[in-house]
Amino acid sequence: MYKLKLKRARRQKRPLLNLDWQPNFRWRSPALVACIPLALIIVAVWGVAAQAQDTPLTPEAVQGALNTIWVLVAAILVIFMNAGFGMLETGFCRQKNAVNILSKNLIVFALATLAYWAIGFSFMFGAEGNSFIGLGGFFLSSENPETYNLAPFPEGLPIPVFFLFQAAFAGTAATIVSGAVAERIKFVDFLIFSLLLTGISYPITGHWVWGNGLLSNIAFLGKTVDGQEVTVAFKDFAGSTVVHAVGGWAALMGAAFLGPRIGKYAADGTPQALPGHNMGFAMLGCLILWVGWFGFNPGSQLAADEAVPYIAVTTNLAAAAGGIAATITAWLAIGKPDLSMIINGILAGLVSITAPCASVSYFFAVVIGAIGGVIVVYSVLFLDRIKIDDPVGATSVHLVCGTWGTLALGLFDKELGLLTGHGVTQLIAQIIGILTVGGFTVLLSSIFWLALKQTLGIRVPEEEELKGLDIGEHGMEAYSGFLKE
Amino acid sequence: MYKLKLKRARRQKRPLLNLDWQPNFRWRSPALVACIPLALIIVAVWGVAAQAQDTPLTPEAVQGALNTIWVLVAAILVIFMNAGFGMLETGFCRQKNAVNILSKNLIVFALATLAYWAIGFSFMFGAEGNSFIGLGGFFLSSENPETYNLAPFPEGLPIPVFFLFQAAFAGTAATIVSGAVAERIKFVDFLIFSLLLTGISYPITGHWVWGNGLLSNIAFLGKTVDGQEVTVAFKDFAGSTVVHAVGGWAALMGAAFLGPRIGKYAADGTPQALPGHNMGFAMLGCLILWVGWFGFNPGSQLAADEAVPYIAVTTNLAAAAGGIAATITAWLAIGKPDLSMIINGILAGLVSITAPCASVSYFFAVVIGAIGGVIVVYSVLFLDRIKIDDPVGATSVHLVCGTWGTLALGLFDKELGLLTGHGVTQLIAQIIGILTVGGFTVLLSSIFWLALKQTLGIRVPEEEELKGLDIGEHGMEAYSGFLKE
Amino acid sequence: MYKLKLKRARRQKRPLLNLDWQPNFRWRSPALVACIPLALIIVAVWGVAAQAQDTPLTPEAVQGALNTIWVLVAAILVIFMNAGFGMLETGFCRQKNAVNILSKNLIVFALATLAYWAIGFSFMFGAEGNSFIGLGGFFLSSENPETYNLAPFPEGLPIPVFFLFQAAFAGTAATIVSGAVAERIKFVDFLIFSLLLTGISYPITGHWVWGNGLLSNIAFLGKTVDGQEVTVAFKDFAGSTVVHAVGGWAALMGAAFLGPRIGKYAADGTPQALPGHNMGFAMLGCLILWVGWFGFNPGSQLAADEAVPYIAVTTNLAAAAGGIAATITAWLAIGKPDLSMIINGILAGLVSITAPCASVSYFFAVVIGAIGGVIVVYSVLFLDRIKIDDPVGATSVHLVCGTWGTLALGLFDKELGLLTGHGVTQLIAQIIGILTVGGFTVLLSSIFWLALKQTLGIRVPEEEELKGLDIGEHGMEAYSGFLKE
Repeated sequence: MYKLKLKRARRQKRPLLNLDWQPNFRWRSPALVACIPLALIIVAVWGVAAQAQDTPLTPEAVQGALNTIWVLVAAILVIFMNAGFGMLETGFCRQKNAVNILSKNLIVFALATLAYWAIGFSFMFGAEGNSFIGLGGFFLSSENPETYNLAPFPEGLPIPVFFLFQAAFAGTAATIVSGAVAERIKFVDFLIFSLLLTGISYPITGHWVWGNGLLSNIAFLGKTVDGQEVTVAFKDFAGSTVVHAVGGWAALMGAAFLGPRIGKYAADGTPQALPGHNMGFAMLGCLILWVGWFGFNPGSQLAADEAVPYIAVTTNLAAAAGGIAATITAWLAIGKPDLSMIINGILAGLVSITAPCASVSYFFAVVIGAIGGVIVVYSVLFLDRIKIDDPVGATSVHLVCGTWGTLALGLFDKELGLLTGHGVTQLIAQIIGILTVGGFTVLLSSIFWLALKQTLGIRVPEEEELKGLDIGEHGMEAYSGFLKE
Repeated sequence: MYKLKLKRARRQKRPLLNLDWQPNFRWRSPALVACIPLALIIVAVWGVAAQAQDTPLTPEAVQGALNTIWVLVAAILVIFMNAGFGMLETGFCRQKNAVNILSKNLIVFALATLAYWAIGFSFMFGAEGNSFIGLGGFFLSSENPETYNLAPFPEGLPIPVFFLFQAAFAGTAATIVSGAVAERIKFVDFLIFSLLLTGISYPITGHWVWGNGLLSNIAFLGKTVDGQEVTVAFKDFAGSTVVHAVGGWAALMGAAFLGPRIGKYAADGTPQALPGHNMGFAMLGCLILWVGWFGFNPGSQLAADEAVPYIAVTTNLAAAAGGIAATITAWLAIGKPDLSMIINGILAGLVSITAPCASVSYFFAVVIGAIGGVIVVYSVLFLDRIKIDDPVGATSVHLVCGTWGTLALGLFDKELGLLTGHGVTQLIAQIIGILTVGGFTVLLSSIFWLALKQTLGIRVPEEEELKGLDIGEHGMEAYSGFLKE
Repeated sequence: MYKLKLKRARRQKRPLLNLDWQPNFRWRSPALVACIPLALIIVAVWGVAAQAQDTPLTPEAVQGALNTIWVLVAAILVIFMNAGFGMLETGFCRQKNAVNILSKNLIVFALATLAYWAIGFSFMFGAEGNSFIGLGGFFLSSENPETYNLAPFPEGLPIPVFFLFQAAFAGTAATIVSGAVAERIKFVDFLIFSLLLTGISYPITGHWVWGNGLLSNIAFLGKTVDGQEVTVAFKDFAGSTVVHAVGGWAALMGAAFLGPRIGKYAADGTPQALPGHNMGFAMLGCLILWVGWFGFNPGSQLAADEAVPYIAVTTNLAAAAGGIAATITAWLAIGKPDLSMIINGILAGLVSITAPCASVSYFFAVVIGAIGGVIVVYSVLFLDRIKIDDPVGATSVHLVCGTWGTLALGLFDKELGLLTGHGVTQLIAQIIGILTVGGFTVLLSSIFWLALKQTLGIRVPEEEELKGLDIGEHGMEAYSGFLKE
């Protein structure tokens, strides 16, 4: 399709000096002479081929190449979010567990990549499957778009770039779990759970929504307030539910099965603050995530069109509103503008706008983000009180605000929202989607966690937890020799 | 305009199973039957619509989409600079104030986003205004390019992406202030000042230069040395003055009104070194800023054309020259290659080339950057001596080098520079612009700072300053439990 | 070529109010009147010019602009790798040398930029040279593509963006050295060596492979197992040898000439662990490098075509496989999943896939990365034993895995690999390339290191090494006042 690549390839082959290597080595062999006409023929054939390929360089082909590059850039931004989660979670945890958290957040994307490549992508998008699960094209073995349920996707978007973007999303779901189970989970259990989540559970529920599965096949017919009939299905543009709530449910179950960290609750049950050890890392992580979300949301358009900058602006407004709302809420509720609440407020805004980013007004983007920022503060306080120990607030940010964002689409969607005057149909579809995806994820991740608990045990020994997982699990310290002798 | 999006939308609506939700719930209702022809009609209509929209996919449309994506990527890079400023300023300050600086640098972009969205963008580009201030289209309420003074801007560049790029710039101006006022300003005052700067002051002076205001409407007619007549106006391609000097002036006034930190000057007036607590953060911040500048300068072209890589190269050469010049200068002047001087030298090179990056030769880009790198070292030493306490050198980097870069355009511009043989006209235009923008910013930010000082007070109590703002303002530490018990 | 830029330019010139600056200043001068028709003529001429330039906006031109933007984005990602190397190496070294390492990794890209701009780019691609070295177009003095040996490169790719991409590569080669010589080299020697490497040595060997030099001019004619004749030359798509092994050889020679750090070996010769001081920095560095590699490898396609996402996926799979393989290997060999081994395993996978990323199957990408991840663990242990003290494992990652990746192309290349059934010819070509480039780099960098050793001395005094290079070389600490008084 592109002339440029051919020319580059041609250069590699142009033989100026030829050596006949097999079976024996001779400089200036007769093969040299034989080769000249051969080379000329090759060049001529390539020239014609290049010509033939030049002709159809249409605007559509260039737009396809632009879509490809944009989705690749978006995928790179989402992959960069691994650094964001790594810094955020490490910063929010204690120094003695830093190596463990860093290791988990680093290896999790490697595991997600391989699991999603081997089976996850096929379970999610394989065209041979059914409404429940996709099948076929394992190990990305086919470049034929028909192998995967991509028919409704943009023409000309190559499978590899779509795979990379989706693999980055799968990795995000897994990395959300990392924070909630931090400071007490065995390293090996986290590795296995990550493989199961990104290889099996996340792809199945993802298939329902994005792979022409269950939830995209169930459509609802409703009436708007003015009597007009509308047909709707569960909508989750960039994954408030599909990615964030799924990761959040898996995280919640993990935190619940693990139980709270030693020292998190006083004898009388009062939650104790176990403050993070590096706010610089946490703030850096937050900003990397903010930047990464410009791949996450606008990239989900899967095309370089005029919707992309619109989505970027709603995303940014919601992040800003979430951060400011959380700052004010924390100031009023706790008495000080706590930095960890500012950080979680921004993330809450981002998670909240993820589902509705493409279909709400700027004003409602601000409202959605701001409500997310308020919710996250109270959710963190509430989970603390009901003894779910989530060291970094992952459940509050990703599950609670992911659910809020999914509902918000049903409330504020320009064309289908309840509060924009289009009836309750879409909102009900959203609730059904939230319950279906959530229920299945809770079920499957409970099975995974329980199986791990029964076989390997999921929690490190008490002595190791007290001393820190860095020495116990990894045999090293995060800040060795930091205090000069 | 693009077929792809329509197809995606279609998928969402394709009803395979229909539910009549309102007023009552019935599976397999008659509505299902009624819906089939409706759905077919919808599909058919969309097909035609898609066809109709396909037809005009011209190279111009694809170029427009490419411009959009490029400016979006550039905006993302500029937004990433918030992480750079955050790391840089935190690293350059003391540990006891780290949470405060991180909080300021994180929330400032949220504040800038909302303030610039509500009023700033309209004050800067609103078409209903006059030479002094723009008006109309508040809250980004219009997608009509004529609402904003964008007529001379690239056709096909959507308003949202232009807004995001400009909002990122506004955030940069505000974040510059953060460093200069660090370690002694009350958190709430910084929040309010940021809103005022990004909502009012920055947009007004920005309007003068980039919004068809005062300075872009005043043109000068001069003669070059060879007698040719040229018409020039104040030129500031990417904002050496509009962004950096404006932020720098506001920073300088803040530092002046606040007075130096306790301990900065000995009893005899000798400046004392108060070294930063994390050089790793500072260096990381510098490199993030370097990378972000590839959005700042080349993105200001606002189109994906052949000027973009040229600007990227001049930007990179100036940064390199600034860093090396500052290293050598510091080595000679202080005796050692001080890391903070290397960092500030690179930033000095970047700020210096921001105005002239598009219109000077590679060789002069190196000269401009190198001179910036020398200037910044002596400026830091000079400000210290006159008792302006700027903990991170923001005034030296952004105000002094921003001014130098703006003048440098008048000296080295390929077509209008004094030293390239085109007379003094452009240089005088530059001086007028520097004075006008600077004067107004000094005036307005003085009013802001004074009003805050009179009402809320701008400086934390002495005891809090000594103990650190982290506990006083935020009730937390940056490195809690870092020293293992 | 593009209308947009012209329109922007026009705005700058539109004179509403004119001042005659030279020789004397007069408001509302007669020049104003004279200027109106002039302005009208200018506008009219520009209109025609814009029209004339609009006409030829072909899909090819837009594709050219897209290629430019993509290669620029890739260059930015590669430049961001400097932050990755900086964080990685600083984290892996001891606190007392942190400022020194940060300074080296920051200034090295500045030095590489200027050296490569002045002479390196011409030595590598200058068309006036010969098979050994390129010549002409020093200081990027020509925008004529024929000045540089770029004929086989994509049409329409501007020289500046190609230069920036290549300069970023040169910087990478130099920054690799930084880690291996850390904690004992004099700052000034590192600066000089970096200039020599990026200005002379790297460009010469780069010329042989990528600049139509020696190795691209020697082609080999061989037979595949089925008797078909093929013509091959040394292939290194994105620089496993050209960049990584070259940097690795220079690093190895530096480490050898410097000798091990004080305390690295016990009296009986047993290697001692000198653990790094900040694993958070190291992990962040690793993820930045991972992300940067999406510029390094896919960007080397030098065009925005369908090969780009394919390369991104092979790159990502190899990184994931390398990380997991190293984790398992370390777990088995050392007993714990050491974080520094996970990090080096990911980098090993990335370096290994750099040569073959465009021409191997997904499956073999995983194999190549995984073998890289195993090799790197044993290489680190081996080098320790033979008393090559490389504090960050740069030699193992870049030299050993770079060489492995170059060989892997000869083994697994889809069309030319030994194990894919195409005979040994390509593998032999790879070996010849490895030996030629490696031999020359060893020779030249030995000369550089020896010359420096004889003149300036390359190692800091023992007392300074014990106390830390931060005070000795830079007069400052990395974490000043970190321990609150």
